[in-house]
Formats: sequence, structure tokens, C-alpha cells
Amino acid sequence: MDATHDEHQHEHRTDGPDGVDARAAAGAQRTTVGALGELAVLDRVTRRLPAGSPVLGPGDDCAVVAAPDGRFVVTTDMMVHGPDFRWAWSSPEDVGWKAAATNLSDVAAMGAVPSGLVVAIAAPPDTQVAVLEGVADGFRLAVDALAPGCGVVGGDLSTSATFSLTVTAFGDLGGRDPVVRSGARVGDVLAVSGELGAAARGLARLFRDGVDAAGEPDVERVRASGADTDPDVARQRRPVPPIADGPLAAVAGATAMLDLSDGLAIDAGRLARASGVTLELDPAEASAPDGVVDEVALHGGEDHGLLATFPVGTRLPGGFRRIGVVRERTSHAGADHAERPVDLVRGGTPVPTTGWDPYADWDGVAG
Amino acid sequence: MDATHDEHQHEHRTDGPDGVDARAAAGAQRTTVGALGELAVLDRVTRRLPAGSPVLGPGDDCAVVAAPDGRFVVTTDMMVHGPDFRWAWSSPEDVGWKAAATNLSDVAAMGAVPSGLVVAIAAPPDTQVAVLEGVADGFRLAVDALAPGCGVVGGDLSTSATFSLTVTAFGDLGGRDPVVRSGARVGDVLAVSGELGAAARGLARLFRDGVDAAGEPDVERVRASGADTDPDVARQRRPVPPIADGPLAAVAGATAMLDLSDGLAIDAGRLARASGVTLELDPAEASAPDGVVDEVALHGGEDHGLLATFPVGTRLPGGFRRIGVVRERTSHAGADHAERPVDLVRGGTPVPTTGWDPYADWDGVAG
Repeated sequence: MDATHDEHQHEHRTDGPDGVDARAAAGAQRTTVGALGELAVLDRVTRRLPAGSPVLGPGDDCAVVAAPDGRFVVTTDMMVHGPDFRWAWSSPEDVGWKAAATNLSDVAAMGAVPSGLVVAIAAPPDTQVAVLEGVADGFRLAVDALAPGCGVVGGDLSTSATFSLTVTAFGDLGGRDPVVRSGARVGDVLAVSGELGAAARGLARLFRDGVDAAGEPDVERVRASGADTDPDVARQRRPVPPIADGPLAAVAGATAMLDLSDGLAIDAGRLARASGVTLELDPAEASAPDGVVDEVALHGGEDHGLLATFPVGTRLPGGFRRIGVVRERTSHAGADHAERPVDLVRGGTPVPTTGWDPYADWDGVAG
Repeated sequence: MDATHDEHQHEHRTDGPDGVDARAAAGAQRTTVGALGELAVLDRVTRRLPAGSPVLGPGDDCAVVAAPDGRFVVTTDMMVHGPDFRWAWSSPEDVGWKAAATNLSDVAAMGAVPSGLVVAIAAPPDTQVAVLEGVADGFRLAVDALAPGCGVVGGDLSTSATFSLTVTAFGDLGGRDPVVRSGARVGDVLAVSGELGAAARGLARLFRDGVDAAGEPDVERVRASGADTDPDVARQRRPVPPIADGPLAAVAGATAMLDLSDGLAIDAGRLARASGVTLELDPAEASAPDGVVDEVALHGGEDHGLLATFPVGTRLPGGFRRIGVVRERTSHAGADHAERPVDLVRGGTPVPTTGWDPYADWDGVAG
């Protein structure tokens, strides 16, 4: 809709709000987007979205968003049915929540306060309108919980053989420098905010208990197994990134920061390489509230916590807790005796900083 | 990539730039994105994109873009394989060009100067890397031609069963009010900039000459029919919106403006309803450079010209020419004798303001 609610309007299909409402009422819950048409779908979806307070909202070719800082931060991220979510495992509300949360987390990771979102959704024509309404509800719930006052200021509704959402999020730096990945200095404290490992444990549970005999995602198995009430599954479906801790970290003087999208080890590797340092995890007994950065916390993704470095002596803000320290970049002799730089080390042993590749690793299953 | 070039990095698949280059050379033109992996694909795509001059470019969770006006305009638009383009009819360069051009046009339609783009691309794993390189080339060619100095400041690369691109574009208002659809006043001159009808004629030619006996899009038929050298087909593939005329119109005092994405009649209807006026087209002999706003110009979309209203006596800027005038909103008795408001009229006869609905009208063909 080009940030517009009446793009592709089609008076040949609807004869005004009364006609739309009558048809919607008749179709009840089972109406497809193809049957209802874009204008009516937009109307039903838009009223459920969080409006925020843009300078100019939907209805024109563009929305207008305030950028009092004179700059804005921007990130875009796509969620695709199949590689990124399965309807058997996530409700429409879950999908909307996660799409909002992951993008808000990227904004927070720069030290910025979220100022707006735009959302492009592609849905097959046989998609139930209730699915899009649920996705919109998920956006509203996530924004209300994680970034109150922010809103969806525009969007686009398209058709496709594959359901996908692309969210683009903006934020305001409030006059501060953006906190980048490359700023960590030797001696800084390494700290983390947010949960570690819950989303990965939840996904593992779904892969274990939420599939049928052929290994296909199966909503009935999810229910029967009790996975629906597993708090880890809840975190996989609706991550709760510590959005407010991003700006707090910037104010406290964080030297580097990023969003933990792919797991502590992978993301620590990115920070280490960008900053040209080696990150050293504290001994297990010293780390995290429960004293453990375990293997799941190290290698499980999708928690969307924040990893940051702070100058020694900084009083860690919000939910941040120390997990290590920044060292000079070191190298390590591999099995082939070649020296390789080390990103992350614990107890003298390098921690692998590898992970998921969507092109190589997606198994093609949607579900 | 969350506006990032090293997201989802995966050292287990590549062992540095040398390994990547060696594999790329071996695979030559036929390498798929699935075989090459995301990091190497990103590297090859990113270097072809126009960089622009963001405050902070790719490499972090967000890019940072200047907004000297203290506000920014934003639009998002998705292009999906099937309903929006067919590979048999458009090259990857064409697809990239069009995705950039249509979004830049929405920015111009607010009277803003484009300041940046972010691009999310979802590609099936068997997509040739050369396809993504071509799309990136299309972005660069379009930005260089239409909005020099603008650039792609971030993006996301995902996998999907269906190829799609979502472009989000930003612009700066330079201290001016945004030009909205609702500002047309009775007595204003109605004017248009850019071509009318060429893209629709080009699409009609492709539907006529670019299909096989079964009606499926067919690249060989396109070639054999000579459609490849048809200037109208070129405009369908690579629209040339008059981007600079958007800010010029704002400076000249345009009271309302929008992008002609769906045809003059549909888009005039939007402006008329938003402003609460009736638009009256001049008699044919008085309109357009060649004296004609013909049926194709009225009802054909995708030219991405600009439709605007100006106070009487305004010297029309750039490529704008007069096509009509703004009247008080009138009504007309339909065949059922009910009075209905009239959006657009010519020679006393209402012009229908209807068009394409992606959910209802896509035939499911990709090609």
C-alpha cells in the first residue's frame, strides 16, 4: 500500500464500507484475503495495528516520521514461512510478535529508541483474513510490551505463493553516537542483557515433540505433548528482548553492542572480529544469574538479548550482567598447526563461533 | 543481514576471502546461492550496490541515515515473483531497477529528495548468484540514473520458495511540508509529469507476443517477436519516474501530489476522494504534449509519473504539463438512478476510477 490504505482500491469489488462490512460478517472467520480483496483486508488489518504517533500516518505515498536527532537508525529483516517459522508451531500472533521484536532489538542494539516500523506482508490468496488480523495483533502486543509509543506507520500488502513479512524499523539516537560493534577496547567488561538459551531450548522441544511420525511439524503433537505451556517454547515464539536496555547501555558508555540473534558465540565472534579483540568468558561459576553460560546459551540463537562491552568500573545498567572481559586479540594453533585468530575463549580454550546459514541449512520444510 | 554484511557468518563453510573467491571462480556463472552460502553471496551482491553516503553504512545491527530536516519520509513496497514480475519477461537488472524506481517515486511524490534505501531479498536456494548480482546492478543503474547520491544503506538476504524483494525508501523534505493527497483546492490546475501509458502498452505487448501457445510467459517468444527492442516494453521493465520533479513541485507550491502507480484514472480518484473534489480533465486536444490523454494513459499503470495540483497561475515546474482543473465535488446519477460522487470527469462524463487488485486478480502464473 505504499504506506497507504487506499492503494489498489477497487470499487468494482466493494461498494463502500457497508458492502465491505456485510461481506465480512457473512464470511465470518473463514474469509480468505482473495475473497475479501485488498481494500477490505487493509481496513481490517490496519485498525488492529499500533498507530504510534508519526508526523504523518498512512494515507499517502509515504509516512513521515520525526527524527529529532537529525539522523535515524534503520534495520530491515524478513521472516519467511518455512525457513523462519511454521504455522504448526507458531500462531499468527506469535509471528507478528516475533517480526516486531527482532527488528526492535536491532534498533535497541545501536543504543536507539524505536520510533516506528513499516511492514510489508505477502500472503497467498487463500490465506484466511483472520491470519492477517492475528499477525497485526501480534505486532500490537509486541510494540505495547516492548516499545510502548512506537507504531506501524506504513506498509504494503501483496500476494505471493509464500507467506512472508518484511519489517523495517527506525530509531532515534537522542543525540548520542550509535553504539557499533567495532568499539570494544582491551580491558572492557563483557556483559549481556536478556535471556540466554530459552528460545533455542524451545525450538529444540518443538523439533522433538512437535512433529509427526514423518518428522513434519504437527500442531496436534505440539498440543498433546504439553509444549504449548513450556516457557521455553513461549520464548521461541515470542522473544522478549530487553529493548530499553539498549539506550541505557549507550547512556552508560557502552563501547560496543549487538543483538544476540544467532547465539552468544556467533555474535560474540562478530563483535570480536569487528573490534579486533578476543573476548574471554569468565569461568562458568562467575557468569550469569544462575552461574552458568551453558552450551545452549553459547550456541542457541533467537533470544535477542544484547551483548555489550563497557569500560572497567562502569555500573552496569538495566538487566546487564558481567560474563567476561575484552583481551588483546590472540591466536591459537589448530589441528593442522596453523595459527588462527581467536574470537572467543573460555578457560584457555577457543569457543567455536559458527552457526546457521539460511541458504545452506534450510531443509525445505514449511509446515 | 539486519543492515549488516556479516550476519549469519559461517566460517564452517568458508575459510576466508580466498576460499570464497576460489569457490566462486570454480562455479563461474552457474553457482547457486545455496552452494555459495550467505556470506559469500552478500559479499558479491553488496559490492555492486550503490553505497550512497549514510552516516553509518552496513556492518552493524542498523545503518544510520542523516535526516537534516528533523523528519524523514518512508515508504515500503514488495515485488513478488508471479504477481509482480516474470523472469521470462524481465531480466534481474530490470527487476532491481523497477524495485528501486517505484519506491523512489513514492518518496518524490511527497516532495522529498531520496536519502536512502534498504532492501530485503528472499531467494530460493537454487537461485543463480548471477541473478542476485543482476538485481544489485539494476539497483545501481536506477539510483545512478534517477536519484544520484542516494544509496542502499542496508538490507537482508533470506531464503524462500518464492523470490521477492522488499524495498524501503527514505527521503528528506528540506524543511518543506510534505505534499499530501488531500490538499487539492477548487480552481487548482491539475498537472502531470512523466510518461503516460508506455508501461501499460509494454505489458500488453508482452502478454500478446511474449507467451507460448499455452499462454505461459516465454523468453524465446519475447526475443523472436522483437518486443525486446520496443520502447514501451523498455518502460514496462525499467520505468523512468521524474524523481526530481517531486521536490520541484513542492517548491513551486503544489497543493496535492501522488505517484501514478496504478494509472491516471485510479490515482486521480484517490486524490479526488482524499481532497473532496472532482477532477475535470481538459478536452483531449488541450492535454499532454501530443494532445492526448488516451484510454491507455487513463487506465494503464506502472508509469510512475507524478500527478499534482497547483494554484492557478503557478508556472509549472520541470516536466509538469496541465491536463485539467479541480472542481467542486459533484455527483452523478448511475444506471440505478442513485446519485454517486464523481472523482474524475471529462466532457461531462464520469471516468471510472477502478483497477488491479492483487488478491483478486493474480492468475497464479509466475513464469
